[in-house]
Amino acid sequence: MKLWDKGFSIDKKIELFTVGNDREVDMHIAKYDVIASLAHAKMLTSIGLISEEEMKLVAIGLKDLAIEIEKGTFVIEDSFEDVHSKIEWELTQKCGEVGKKIHTARSRNDQVLVALQLYYKENLSIINQQVKTLFDTLLQLAATHQSKLIPGYTHLQVAMPSSFGLWFSAYAELLIDDVYLLNAVSKIVDQNPLGSAAGYGSSFPIDRAMTTKEMDFSTLKFNVVAAQMSRGKSERSLAAALGSLCNTLARFSMDICLYMSQNFGFVTFPDELTTGSSIMPHKKNPDVFELIRGKCNKIQALQTEMILITNNLPSGYHRDFQLLKENSINAIEDVKTILDIFNFAIQQIIVKDIDLTDEKYQYLFTVDSINNLVTEGMPFREAYQKIGSQVQAGTYKADLGKKHSHMGSIHNLGLEEIRNKFPKS
Amino acid sequence: MKLWDKGFSIDKKIELFTVGNDREVDMHIAKYDVIASLAHAKMLTSIGLISEEEMKLVAIGLKDLAIEIEKGTFVIEDSFEDVHSKIEWELTQKCGEVGKKIHTARSRNDQVLVALQLYYKENLSIINQQVKTLFDTLLQLAATHQSKLIPGYTHLQVAMPSSFGLWFSAYAELLIDDVYLLNAVSKIVDQNPLGSAAGYGSSFPIDRAMTTKEMDFSTLKFNVVAAQMSRGKSERSLAAALGSLCNTLARFSMDICLYMSQNFGFVTFPDELTTGSSIMPHKKNPDVFELIRGKCNKIQALQTEMILITNNLPSGYHRDFQLLKENSINAIEDVKTILDIFNFAIQQIIVKDIDLTDEKYQYLFTVDSINNLVTEGMPFREAYQKIGSQVQAGTYKADLGKKHSHMGSIHNLGLEEIRNKFPKS
Amino acid sequence: MKLWDKGFSIDKKIELFTVGNDREVDMHIAKYDVIASLAHAKMLTSIGLISEEEMKLVAIGLKDLAIEIEKGTFVIEDSFEDVHSKIEWELTQKCGEVGKKIHTARSRNDQVLVALQLYYKENLSIINQQVKTLFDTLLQLAATHQSKLIPGYTHLQVAMPSSFGLWFSAYAELLIDDVYLLNAVSKIVDQNPLGSAAGYGSSFPIDRAMTTKEMDFSTLKFNVVAAQMSRGKSERSLAAALGSLCNTLARFSMDICLYMSQNFGFVTFPDELTTGSSIMPHKKNPDVFELIRGKCNKIQALQTEMILITNNLPSGYHRDFQLLKENSINAIEDVKTILDIFNFAIQQIIVKDIDLTDEKYQYLFTVDSINNLVTEGMPFREAYQKIGSQVQAGTYKADLGKKHSHMGSIHNLGLEEIRNKFPKS
Amino acid sequence: MKLWDKGFSIDKKIELFTVGNDREVDMHIAKYDVIASLAHAKMLTSIGLISEEEMKLVAIGLKDLAIEIEKGTFVIEDSFEDVHSKIEWELTQKCGEVGKKIHTARSRNDQVLVALQLYYKENLSIINQQVKTLFDTLLQLAATHQSKLIPGYTHLQVAMPSSFGLWFSAYAELLIDDVYLLNAVSKIVDQNPLGSAAGYGSSFPIDRAMTTKEMDFSTLKFNVVAAQMSRGKSERSLAAALGSLCNTLARFSMDICLYMSQNFGFVTFPDELTTGSSIMPHKKNPDVFELIRGKCNKIQALQTEMILITNNLPSGYHRDFQLLKENSINAIEDVKTILDIFNFAIQQIIVKDIDLTDEKYQYLFTVDSINNLVTEGMPFREAYQKIGSQVQAGTYKADLGKKHSHMGSIHNLGLEEIRNKFPKS
Repeated sequence: MKLWDKGFSIDKKIELFTVGNDREVDMHIAKYDVIASLAHAKMLTSIGLISEEEMKLVAIGLKDLAIEIEKGTFVIEDSFEDVHSKIEWELTQKCGEVGKKIHTARSRNDQVLVALQLYYKENLSIINQQVKTLFDTLLQLAATHQSKLIPGYTHLQVAMPSSFGLWFSAYAELLIDDVYLLNAVSKIVDQNPLGSAAGYGSSFPIDRAMTTKEMDFSTLKFNVVAAQMSRGKSERSLAAALGSLCNTLARFSMDICLYMSQNFGFVTFPDELTTGSSIMPHKKNPDVFELIRGKCNKIQALQTEMILITNNLPSGYHRDFQLLKENSINAIEDVKTILDIFNFAIQQIIVKDIDLTDEKYQYLFTVDSINNLVTEGMPFREAYQKIGSQVQAGTYKADLGKKHSHMGSIHNLGLEEIRNKFPKS
Repeated sequence: MKLWDKGFSIDKKIELFTVGNDREVDMHIAKYDVIASLAHAKMLTSIGLISEEEMKLVAIGLKDLAIEIEKGTFVIEDSFEDVHSKIEWELTQKCGEVGKKIHTARSRNDQVLVALQLYYKENLSIINQQVKTLFDTLLQLAATHQSKLIPGYTHLQVAMPSSFGLWFSAYAELLIDDVYLLNAVSKIVDQNPLGSAAGYGSSFPIDRAMTTKEMDFSTLKFNVVAAQMSRGKSERSLAAALGSLCNTLARFSMDICLYMSQNFGFVTFPDELTTGSSIMPHKKNPDVFELIRGKCNKIQALQTEMILITNNLPSGYHRDFQLLKENSINAIEDVKTILDIFNFAIQQIIVKDIDLTDEKYQYLFTVDSINNLVTEGMPFREAYQKIGSQVQAGTYKADLGKKHSHMGSIHNLGLEEIRNKFPKS
Repeated sequence: MKLWDKGFSIDKKIELFTVGNDREVDMHIAKYDVIASLAHAKMLTSIGLISEEEMKLVAIGLKDLAIEIEKGTFVIEDSFEDVHSKIEWELTQKCGEVGKKIHTARSRNDQVLVALQLYYKENLSIINQQVKTLFDTLLQLAATHQSKLIPGYTHLQVAMPSSFGLWFSAYAELLIDDVYLLNAVSKIVDQNPLGSAAGYGSSFPIDRAMTTKEMDFSTLKFNVVAAQMSRGKSERSLAAALGSLCNTLARFSMDICLYMSQNFGFVTFPDELTTGSSIMPHKKNPDVFELIRGKCNKIQALQTEMILITNNLPSGYHRDFQLLKENSINAIEDVKTILDIFNFAIQQIIVKDIDLTDEKYQYLFTVDSINNLVTEGMPFREAYQKIGSQVQAGTYKADLGKKHSHMGSIHNLGLEEIRNKFPKS
Repeated sequence: MKLWDKGFSIDKKIELFTVGNDREVDMHIAKYDVIASLAHAKMLTSIGLISEEEMKLVAIGLKDLAIEIEKGTFVIEDSFEDVHSKIEWELTQKCGEVGKKIHTARSRNDQVLVALQLYYKENLSIINQQVKTLFDTLLQLAATHQSKLIPGYTHLQVAMPSSFGLWFSAYAELLIDDVYLLNAVSKIVDQNPLGSAAGYGSSFPIDRAMTTKEMDFSTLKFNVVAAQMSRGKSERSLAAALGSLCNTLARFSMDICLYMSQNFGFVTFPDELTTGSSIMPHKKNPDVFELIRGKCNKIQALQTEMILITNNLPSGYHRDFQLLKENSINAIEDVKTILDIFNFAIQQIIVKDIDLTDEKYQYLFTVDSINNLVTEGMPFREAYQKIGSQVQAGTYKADLGKKHSHMGSIHNLGLEEIRNKFPKS
């Protein structure tokens, strides 16, 4: 059932090798192939290559397919190479010859390219909303726990006072940087590539502005060679932005796992969010956050894969590009799940009381003590020496009363300022 | 001459190991440490920690240093750990005690962070302009050579007609995607981190809005923990965006090297831009574009380095972060040179005449031939079979007359549309 | 059916997230869990923790399972978390209480670790044999085609004469380097980790030398902490060695795809090994080798993933490690298929006649011409100038008769020497 | 002063771009170019292309150069492109015409290739010895501190008893795996590539067996195309093996930094090995181990760089390969320093007393308690439930007396077995 079959018998092994698990992966883009096929058919009608009557049939056939996909009854059997040949076949069954006609003035590459880009675009929008939800959750947690101090560390050494408020809202604010990148990638994939055909355009008088409008793209990737080359480049950018987001979530998860250790004991979670051990009955392990960390770290490696597949290949399509979609789609689906789980789990966090008078935290306030002396007029270096000598001699007494008043500090978190900075999508 | 020296003798080997080649790398950020120091001093004056008189001295001292840096007479001797200790020492020499006082309410991390961010911000702006220059060059080349056809390839097989116009403007349009990412990173680094001190803020009543304005940042990284954590995150984003740009340039260079091969013979360059061989007198090698390709590929690996250095580290400063700056700065400096050389070299390109009637290109126009039949009313699959049979039988005759009229195709490049799409920085 | 279930209800979503697709992946290691369980049970019998009678039951039960796995009737239902809980449950069904008893003195981590290592070890041995087969094929092809010259390129420019013999045997010899790395990894995974339990050993008097012998490991990973830490380290080494092999195959595939281009026209393949185009009836695309190249490049990215998952994690088990197995196993299975397909496909290669008198190859023999002059007594630099002047003036005439006699050159390929260098596994 | 100069004026900017910092990097391989030149000259003498008289001159000239390099007085001036042109020029100054003659039958690529391989080979041997030294240090530390218990963690949760003995010797044993890989790479680079000329051999009757013996290579890379292609492949393998070693050192450093945190408090170091803070007088930061960790993580990224530079390039030399040497050489030099510092610093470690009766460690011995019950005859699952119930009810009492007797466990470290496993180089 391969469209390019020229009658040669092809070894089954080779077929399995070349098709791979495209059928499974393609389920994610079936919806978008239907959308793009509809736009393409309407455009072909407008330039007279399909009649109005035929168009009506096609519209009904594609709508049926869209419903099947939505309902989950759409299946790509082993006799089809991919979702595109399956949809063409179904359409021909439903509408007759015109089902084949809509392949006029487009190629398989075209179809894959536009379907992927529609998929990326819609999913980036979903991810953006999920990030916003998590951002709001974190600011809420920061507000709730803003008065609770924790030790701040540098070099993993006890350094200066921090707070749960600072900690939660730090990760909220870092998400904004990730959104800047996600929005840039949204722009990159929001350019209609349809019409590039095999990568060099078509001699048919196709109307690319029309398909751009039909599919709700903001603009075209005008140059057809550029449109084809966006294969790989889109995935690379996507991987960079998802990787940035995953970096934030992974580091947050690392903090959580460390802070759950008995040696820190800053936070814990209800039993539902921890797991036990097959040999140690006392264990409450933070598996959920370890898996978030691990999955996020894995996604951070995606960019290297995307680069290696495409690097140093001359311009023009290569079959290698088929391999780009599997892990890009997997990464997107994983990120959506991760954001969902993270947002759910972090709300269950149990913030513990930390005894900052414990001996190990005794020098947490030395900088505040120095600053007190400076405020009273002593030069900084002298104040530093004085408190330093007390520390050396074991006579230092902590001063817990100092307030940090400046913007973004413990007692002035700037939560509203951070909230207002979140970019409009 | 280390600021944190507490009187312990430290093994020379350890010192060399910990200082590394910071002095050399730091020359690139000296200018920005002066800018940030001036902003910080003014702010300290505004909150009364430095007197107006002292401020005048500091302003003069810093201005002197700025001039030395500008003139290239500024040197970081081996007795200094880094540029920051050197500048503090110089300032103390020039202004006395107040030179030390400006260290009030900031830490070394603070200084490195803000200086790097200023450096990144200014250089991203320069790179953006260079990309725009190259973009204009490529559109000009596309216009100049738009009527010259070349074979278009898929799977490295002769596929369909393309043109020098399509080829040059494809890379122009792809640069726009890179600029989307560069602009996102510009936003990420355009947030004032100063005031995070060691990563947990300060008990001094510092005015971060004022330093933000003084240094011309668009906004603050409000949360001090987030400000500190932007170390690594900025470099990672920067590496992603530079890598994207380098991907475009590397693939373009690959095309050029391939098209210069005698087996393609599409382009060549004047002798000044090629090199010979120590054993083969006939060689004209495209070393410039090979080195662009290689350097660009190297820069594409930077992101992995940046991730690996920071990955899975709990929040808070770690000394590992010192290692982020060397290759980030090197990559930026390299990208500026690469863009400069690329823009110069591509203008010297000599476009050759390609004989498309050569036997190896005989099937270049089969798709156009099929489309002719379709336009005359034959269904696509039937037309495909007909031309296919001619090809099999060796009776196919190329039809070179077909025009591609749609937007972004050979005869309608859409150069103005592409030009208008370039984002305002 | 989770072994560590302590009666808490766990949200279904969390369960799906934590289990992932382990059941599918684990099918590859089911066989090895049975082998390791048998060895462990025998050892427990030898130290009196299981009776001889019980051992007989266990041996029968495990043998039954081994047969089911071999026959493909073994299934891991959704009610089981992974293969290990499934096998324990089956064994308990078959043998009663003793099925649970064999969990004495080992933990889940232990089981996963040893099963993976047995899987890696056996598959590295299979891959090694496949590489040897391909190596022999390439030497055979080199012998068959040794007299056929092709142009050799440097900088993609026509440089000096090469031959199909040199080309095929070059890749054969490069495979030897890959085998050195594969053999090193075989040593790394050929160390019995069983007995590390949760990573800190056991208070039972287990006999690790006995299980080592039973499972046919060459030695132990003695230290139990080291045994646990080999998780991640094994996968990283494996990824490095598979990546090295894939690098060789990918570069070979790149050559093939380039040499199949009409602009080179050095080789082709029967129709069964090429694919057509949905819009271009004349196309014969090298999809098989493009997919080999792409899949090999993807596998070259695996190492980054393995490093990122484990990097900077303190010693001791983390749940993140669960994520290491999926893509390690996928890579191994893919490499076996790739080697199979490559060895099959390369034997079908059709070597074409290349007209070296074609104008584009006119300077292919300049170095030989220079060397002729040198052999006659002229200093190299002078000879270089003389031939260079002829090239410049267009008066150069090629000398095709020169023989290359030294070891490893066109007319003295050293195929036997290369064959003898292939390491014994 | 470029050897391939054909009289064209070349833009200075281009020259700077193409030469890069080769002069600096090349200082590391100067010694090896002299060794290879001597071997090559002797071989040319043996086949009559250089006279015995000339050979005497060359031998003296090269010996002089070797002495200058050894003494550090050898300099590559800006008028030379690289070390190879400098050495040829010097030799011509010292010996006259014959200085040029030794370029007969070899090319620049040849020279770079063989010099790098000699450099890699010797330095891998040095690194191997350094690893052995560190290995011995760690076994010594394990022996010294074998009776001191520490908590063992899984999921960063307190899990089971471990010990300093286990910890130190775990990293010792892991180094053995790294040595397996290093030894494999030693084999890869221990193959004489000289004679591949520009990558396709030579028409001169050179004696490659003789140069192999002269330079003390174990074997030849026979095939000249394979010899050329080892460029990139060697660096890739080297990066994999160095990366593996660095992974071990980085993870060890992570443990050290974590264990130095006040929240663990397991180890510390003398002041000489820690650094202070410019604002916090109490700080003792583990900068040395943080920088080891960071530098090791950076080196783990090297492989991606090496792959990206060479990936998908067709066979034959490309100028891109010039970029492989800089960071390969830097990584080797860094690894030597890291091993030196690590071995020095770890000997200064101060192991602290850990109070295992502290409340946070109260469940450290639950597995031992379960095992006691099992040894007394209770089935494992029942014993697990019983101790689990005690933990839940807060009635669990730790049992500290249990000995771990099996091979590789706390009380039977197997240090001699580990020592004997270290591979002979």
